[in-house]
Amino acid sequence: MSIRIGINGYGNLGRGVELAVMAAPDMELAAVFTRRNPASVKILTPGVPVVNVNEIANWTDEIDVLILCGGSATDLPVQTPQMARNFVCIDSFDNHAHIPEHFANVDAAAKEGGKLAIISCGWDPGMFSLNRVYANAVLPNGKDYTFWGKGVSQGHSDAVRRIKGVKNAKQYTIPVEKALDAVRAGENPELTTRDKHTREVFVVLEEGADAAAIEKEIKQMPDYFEPYDTTVHFISEEEFQRDHMEMAHGGFVFRTGTTGINGEHKQIIEYSLKLDSNPEFTTSVLVAYARAAFRLYNEGQRGCKTVLDIAPAYLSEKSGEELRAHLL
Amino acid sequence: MSIRIGINGYGNLGRGVELAVMAAPDMELAAVFTRRNPASVKILTPGVPVVNVNEIANWTDEIDVLILCGGSATDLPVQTPQMARNFVCIDSFDNHAHIPEHFANVDAAAKEGGKLAIISCGWDPGMFSLNRVYANAVLPNGKDYTFWGKGVSQGHSDAVRRIKGVKNAKQYTIPVEKALDAVRAGENPELTTRDKHTREVFVVLEEGADAAAIEKEIKQMPDYFEPYDTTVHFISEEEFQRDHMEMAHGGFVFRTGTTGINGEHKQIIEYSLKLDSNPEFTTSVLVAYARAAFRLYNEGQRGCKTVLDIAPAYLSEKSGEELRAHLL
Repeated sequence: MSIRIGINGYGNLGRGVELAVMAAPDMELAAVFTRRNPASVKILTPGVPVVNVNEIANWTDEIDVLILCGGSATDLPVQTPQMARNFVCIDSFDNHAHIPEHFANVDAAAKEGGKLAIISCGWDPGMFSLNRVYANAVLPNGKDYTFWGKGVSQGHSDAVRRIKGVKNAKQYTIPVEKALDAVRAGENPELTTRDKHTREVFVVLEEGADAAAIEKEIKQMPDYFEPYDTTVHFISEEEFQRDHMEMAHGGFVFRTGTTGINGEHKQIIEYSLKLDSNPEFTTSVLVAYARAAFRLYNEGQRGCKTVLDIAPAYLSEKSGEELRAHLL
Repeated sequence: MSIRIGINGYGNLGRGVELAVMAAPDMELAAVFTRRNPASVKILTPGVPVVNVNEIANWTDEIDVLILCGGSATDLPVQTPQMARNFVCIDSFDNHAHIPEHFANVDAAAKEGGKLAIISCGWDPGMFSLNRVYANAVLPNGKDYTFWGKGVSQGHSDAVRRIKGVKNAKQYTIPVEKALDAVRAGENPELTTRDKHTREVFVVLEEGADAAAIEKEIKQMPDYFEPYDTTVHFISEEEFQRDHMEMAHGGFVFRTGTTGINGEHKQIIEYSLKLDSNPEFTTSVLVAYARAAFRLYNEGQRGCKTVLDIAPAYLSEKSGEELRAHLL
């Protein structure tokens, strides 16, 4: 029996989830939910209904796992707790500073509804988090470094697009070469947030918008832009469509530690991603954790989990025997 | 209350476990067990007893987790099932082809004794396995590549040392540059075991040993050497002590996959280790999983597990709240 997936929100993430479900041998897409007029939303999978999200309550028996594909700035903080009362839910909430609060809200809602939810599944938070936790546990004496980019951050672009007067926006995260080189050389540099990355934003304004006010609002946005050196460029819609439609990204997680009686042995762990499509990789992670959510719920687990609470075998459609024989 | 660790076998791995326990804030070393005369074994931790392994049955109440530090060729297949009847056990069994058999034996023993055991904790199997499973689950359309070296494989050196007539031996695993380059370039080459690595062995013979017979025995050893192009060098004990005492190692796990409606987006995941001390890294992994074993056993889990069955949070001494706030 296939795992029946629902998608809530059909933007870049929603489309990516649809593609990842197609690639999964044990899943099928049951429905796509949207705030828009369903007739205006064209999806890729033949025969699957597009439904107004106001009618989602009628679908509790038809959906095994609901994948929430809204933005982290304003959609998911509301949607995930709301949906987690009635559905096994999973999201890619990526505002690190607010994860504890989001976790608490989703946990309370899921427990109230007797459901299970997994938040913050993507690559950071997500695969990068896993690597930080494993590496910290294995090398207690050491230092962590995470670098992103160069690439588009969906969360940051989304945050800018929600500013009044912004028609379109794209945000590039750029690692500072000098910092990356020092870490790779095993120098264990002390680096502030500002030392490691710069942020570059390309904005298309709505007619009559106040560019100076918007630039100030972007640069002062807490968590997202305030801790970085940010450059804002205002461009035309034509330039935007021509030069800023790629969604490549990537990054690195390092832990450089020492072992030995006097810390005489250097041990370097590196994890890196080189992604042609950031949203399609994020949604590939979401869909693997949707499989885990389905299984954990059927085992009787309730409340909110993160990737840190889930054993790797739950993500694979292969059996324990197959995994031990071929991948262990 | 500290987790009380027992070490069975005090060679490179045993010493590495002792160092990793010193670095763990929540653990203490309770005893070291040895086949040798305990009076002849000097350990680093003051006040900890060294005990003949024949007396280990008296220690069941004093040890929370027993870490088995024997070799994979002949020690662990016997020792882990034997010990798992009476202790929560953990080992670094690294003979991939025999993992299913070892798992079955340890699982039966641990269930018989009402205990929990974790096998094959190190970096491969271990951290590399985790990365293979995560990457496969996230990118179902793709190819896996694992490369080791250049470095000393403890398991392979151990296997050679157990051959009659061998006084000392060290084995280097060397990745084939051309193959590594092709994978990094995203060419998705088809590579046999022989295409990817060569093996080089340095052997000190006992007096009167038959070099030709030993070379043949090494090269024909199933799983360990037979599938590779192996070069064997016979050297003096002096050369061995001078040139072959380092224990550095490393390696790479890649998964190169595609996403998109026509597989048009390439996604590359890479995990790599650069280790000054292979045994000290392996034992750092063992000790992190000893923490997990202790917790899982106290939660009522029984039987044999591998790294694939264990959620990352169990490895860390930090709470779920701390992990979500700082590492997720």
